[in-house]
Amino acid sequence: MIESEPFVLRSDKDGIATLTLNRPAQYNALSMAMIEALGSTLGQVAEDPSVRVIVLAGAGKAFSAGHDLKEMRAHPEKAFQQTLFSRCGKLMNSLLTLPQPVIARVHGIATAAGCQLVAMCDLAIAADTARFAVSGINLGLFCSSPSVALSRNVGRKRAFEMLVSGDFVSAQEAAQLGLINRSIAPEQLDDAVMHLARNICSKSPSAIAAGKRLFYRQLEMGIEAAHQLAAETMACNMMTADAGEGIDAFIEKRPPVWSSRRMPQQC
Amino acid sequence: MIESEPFVLRSDKDGIATLTLNRPAQYNALSMAMIEALGSTLGQVAEDPSVRVIVLAGAGKAFSAGHDLKEMRAHPEKAFQQTLFSRCGKLMNSLLTLPQPVIARVHGIATAAGCQLVAMCDLAIAADTARFAVSGINLGLFCSSPSVALSRNVGRKRAFEMLVSGDFVSAQEAAQLGLINRSIAPEQLDDAVMHLARNICSKSPSAIAAGKRLFYRQLEMGIEAAHQLAAETMACNMMTADAGEGIDAFIEKRPPVWSSRRMPQQC
Amino acid sequence: MIESEPFVLRSDKDGIATLTLNRPAQYNALSMAMIEALGSTLGQVAEDPSVRVIVLAGAGKAFSAGHDLKEMRAHPEKAFQQTLFSRCGKLMNSLLTLPQPVIARVHGIATAAGCQLVAMCDLAIAADTARFAVSGINLGLFCSSPSVALSRNVGRKRAFEMLVSGDFVSAQEAAQLGLINRSIAPEQLDDAVMHLARNICSKSPSAIAAGKRLFYRQLEMGIEAAHQLAAETMACNMMTADAGEGIDAFIEKRPPVWSSRRMPQQC
Repeated sequence: MIESEPFVLRSDKDGIATLTLNRPAQYNALSMAMIEALGSTLGQVAEDPSVRVIVLAGAGKAFSAGHDLKEMRAHPEKAFQQTLFSRCGKLMNSLLTLPQPVIARVHGIATAAGCQLVAMCDLAIAADTARFAVSGINLGLFCSSPSVALSRNVGRKRAFEMLVSGDFVSAQEAAQLGLINRSIAPEQLDDAVMHLARNICSKSPSAIAAGKRLFYRQLEMGIEAAHQLAAETMACNMMTADAGEGIDAFIEKRPPVWSSRRMPQQC
Repeated sequence: MIESEPFVLRSDKDGIATLTLNRPAQYNALSMAMIEALGSTLGQVAEDPSVRVIVLAGAGKAFSAGHDLKEMRAHPEKAFQQTLFSRCGKLMNSLLTLPQPVIARVHGIATAAGCQLVAMCDLAIAADTARFAVSGINLGLFCSSPSVALSRNVGRKRAFEMLVSGDFVSAQEAAQLGLINRSIAPEQLDDAVMHLARNICSKSPSAIAAGKRLFYRQLEMGIEAAHQLAAETMACNMMTADAGEGIDAFIEKRPPVWSSRRMPQQC
Repeated sequence: MIESEPFVLRSDKDGIATLTLNRPAQYNALSMAMIEALGSTLGQVAEDPSVRVIVLAGAGKAFSAGHDLKEMRAHPEKAFQQTLFSRCGKLMNSLLTLPQPVIARVHGIATAAGCQLVAMCDLAIAADTARFAVSGINLGLFCSSPSVALSRNVGRKRAFEMLVSGDFVSAQEAAQLGLINRSIAPEQLDDAVMHLARNICSKSPSAIAAGKRLFYRQLEMGIEAAHQLAAETMACNMMTADAGEGIDAFIEKRPPVWSSRRMPQQC
């Protein structure tokens, strides 16, 4: 691999942007440079109206093995660690605020911050040979940051066990626990990911973007406030050309044609 | 069906009030009139001390297909949409504040706001031929309001997938995901619902009402405050005649006789 | 059993403190004296740096049948009830703030506050003959306090059903629902508990303690604030000797040697 090889590869097709973590010899470790590269690429994709869905994948044998341990040990000062974990946290949070859904395409291992990345994606499909762990505890470094998304996807008893044991769980168990949507035979993984991605591409982009935004906002509210915000979001959604077109098409039993405009700003 | 046919049928037996959405030709669409009829009926039932449990069912082929699309398109102005979704949200929230538990009896399809209704009920049993979807996205209208209850019953990865794909899930999967309590053969559905309803009827109504109220309040609190409120609720519960009778009956190995009084107001 | 027999037995081995509720003839009822004894023992264990993991078990036929009903009826005044439930709530919350993970070793029945105790432990392994219920409702006393932890481990539909029906669920179902980590044949229960306990003992105590503290704190935060706190915790964790040793050992492919120091106070 030559030095100038980008840390994140981007490949676009039919509205689907596939971003591939590209440090296979380092198991796609989330070094400072990788975090910046992924953040920068996601920033570009977020602004690109041609992108309807993002697929996040890893080059080589693994999805991602988490942080770059050698880099971390080479910079023992606290300021570096604070910057590293803070930037990584912001990258993770940015996945929730992207207008497009993000599907993790997982193979090999997804450990520590690599497992966190899977947990933070809106959707995840894994090869049934994939394995997941929050294994920092084996190195004396509790996976505090991965615990945030893990405990919001997986019940707390099993999440806690993963965190204090560092043990791997299989893709099948990860699906049962809610960490991923499902697992599938490795040779069918790409088809399954593309099937889901194309399904999302067939929907109104403005409705998807507004819906994703609402989904994560309402999760942090009391249920009454959540219903109020959701009601307002639905009324706004009804003001879009796409909702009118979608309902008319449904009543007239024909396929809808989306106008692809974003939700009105005041909504 | 004649014009004067009520939107919601009510049938009471042995403390169980069965409310049936009654616009079968419209798949029990939650039109403005249906929302008002259901809200009004629930208001009456809430005040009726003879009602111990509410069963919510749908007439005809489906539980409910959600909002009334034709009505929504006939009133494109934002004020109507805001009123519609706001009233619907209040109806949904009111299910949590009723003193009686509500069991959804689900058959056929429960889609969009119909799926929301199932998710908002305290309990739900479905025929194993029933199917669930939050399919508004197929019409350009993201199921924002249904997402509130869906994401509080179902893990976020699968909830998000349902919302952006619009795909149906089976009753069996709905049970695994936590959207319903369980599914059962269609011919056993009524028996299963009545068995659960009668079980609840055999308990102290004041303890059930106070417990339901506490359950949803504590869910929105931090765990320490939740334990404080729960401790106070239990102390109040112990001041009721029913708790004294229930414990004495247990110690004396005889069935309890509930006095059916509500929890003291100061509690 | 003689009067002077302690309410809670403590047995330490290799960093594992096994605390056994010891009122077998009363199914280890959580009387006021038992609550104080357990609270006092946990307080001692919390301060003992030789203890890495706590196992909580019950003597005799059951894990615990919950509160002491006869004692509750002997003190009908509200002040006693308030004190009882308040102290019990504080005991339950204290499990989350202990620096060591707590594993519930469950056999027989775990009902009402006994089920709450299981739900509040960080981890739980049960004999597959064990059964769980929040059965206070059968006595006119809704399990309000147990509902707090139950509803944070188990989906709300099944949690609500357990609370209003009082019905037992099997250990297998409890594992599926997330109430316990797993169930196992009774003759393998002790081995399974010790295997998990020893696994945790092999990790850095300071990382485990800081991680457990972070885990429960971040659960009550919005996801962005949770990531910020987690990032700061990880940076602090990286400042410990154990993290340096753990990462170096990993890179050098040798077992780590933990220094066992607590996380720096300023972290």
